[in-house]
Amino acid sequence: MALSSPLLEQAVDQLATLPGVGRRTAMRFALELLRREPAEVVRLAEAIRRLREEVRFCQECCNISDRAVCEICSDPNRDRTLVCVVEDIRDVIAIENTRQFKGLYHVLGGVISPMDGIGPDDLNTKQLFERIAQGEVKEVVLALGATLEGDTTSFYLNRRIKEQGVDVSMIARGISVGGELENVDELTLGRSIMDRKPYEQSVKRG
Amino acid sequence: MALSSPLLEQAVDQLATLPGVGRRTAMRFALELLRREPAEVVRLAEAIRRLREEVRFCQECCNISDRAVCEICSDPNRDRTLVCVVEDIRDVIAIENTRQFKGLYHVLGGVISPMDGIGPDDLNTKQLFERIAQGEVKEVVLALGATLEGDTTSFYLNRRIKEQGVDVSMIARGISVGGELENVDELTLGRSIMDRKPYEQSVKRG
Repeated sequence: MALSSPLLEQAVDQLATLPGVGRRTAMRFALELLRREPAEVVRLAEAIRRLREEVRFCQECCNISDRAVCEICSDPNRDRTLVCVVEDIRDVIAIENTRQFKGLYHVLGGVISPMDGIGPDDLNTKQLFERIAQGEVKEVVLALGATLEGDTTSFYLNRRIKEQGVDVSMIARGISVGGELENVDELTLGRSIMDRKPYEQSVKRG
Repeated sequence: MALSSPLLEQAVDQLATLPGVGRRTAMRFALELLRREPAEVVRLAEAIRRLREEVRFCQECCNISDRAVCEICSDPNRDRTLVCVVEDIRDVIAIENTRQFKGLYHVLGGVISPMDGIGPDDLNTKQLFERIAQGEVKEVVLALGATLEGDTTSFYLNRRIKEQGVDVSMIARGISVGGELENVDELTLGRSIMDRKPYEQSVKRG
């Protein structure tokens, strides 16, 4: 697709670097931007630039935060002996929405993925081990995605954290609440049979 | 979704204004941008800002062009008596790729859409009528989408251009080349029966 304008070409090229955005969608974005007021477009460009240049991360949990220590880490009512390891801020939001977790978080900023050249040192693992070494943490809950990369990361973290003498647990995998058995994939169903629990223990939380 | 960072919140809000992008996708974009080098993110932000602030439009056909008169309009080999009216630059590229059209274009920059508050005066219609008034144009080909908005725009333009004493034609609608009848929707099939042509005339172009 040869365009009559290098400026348009450049904008399309850049927009097409966004995840899941091809050149067709990037072109749609660019044409839509051209229809807007210049001030509106500057607002978008500025928000993107400032996000990367000015955003800060919590010194303790590495979550995105505009303060040195995030709201969750500085909340005196949270259980500081329990740390839940997640991939990114979306997972923190998802778990917070369940209202089932009262400990702190540690945001890795990704998962180990040799295919993408991401090793443990590219993630916030060093901060996690240092945090555990301070002695306050008693249990680390691994809450990573049930993917190959998530499992690899959990495997690595479990080994390293066990060496530090701290308990490691992992969030449960099984059928969805409200789910019909016939719609569950085989792997999940098999796993949920392997991980079965005594009836009384299963229903006690309603 | 309450976020721990106004900067992130702002970036997500702004990215979610892109067409077809919801807050979930916008969040994915933002987290991906945070993983990149700052210089890369600045390049994206700059490309967006410059696109809107510095892009120029061809004086004649209103297409996006970094020159005062675009390549097509300044090509001496093109038929200046024939003008094809399209919605945007994507349509120009699509028609150019067919190599079936040797005239000039006129880019409207949209279609009439009362639902979105877009009337004829929000499009490049004035430039089109002025161009026709200069007397060189003998035929205007309407090549707008086969949608309610496209049809409304064609209806309006046909009436106005006829008043200027110039022929108006419209690109053909019918079944796709290579298409099976059983897969064609009823409206298109009905239209293709209404618009049938003598066999000899239909096959002469192979």
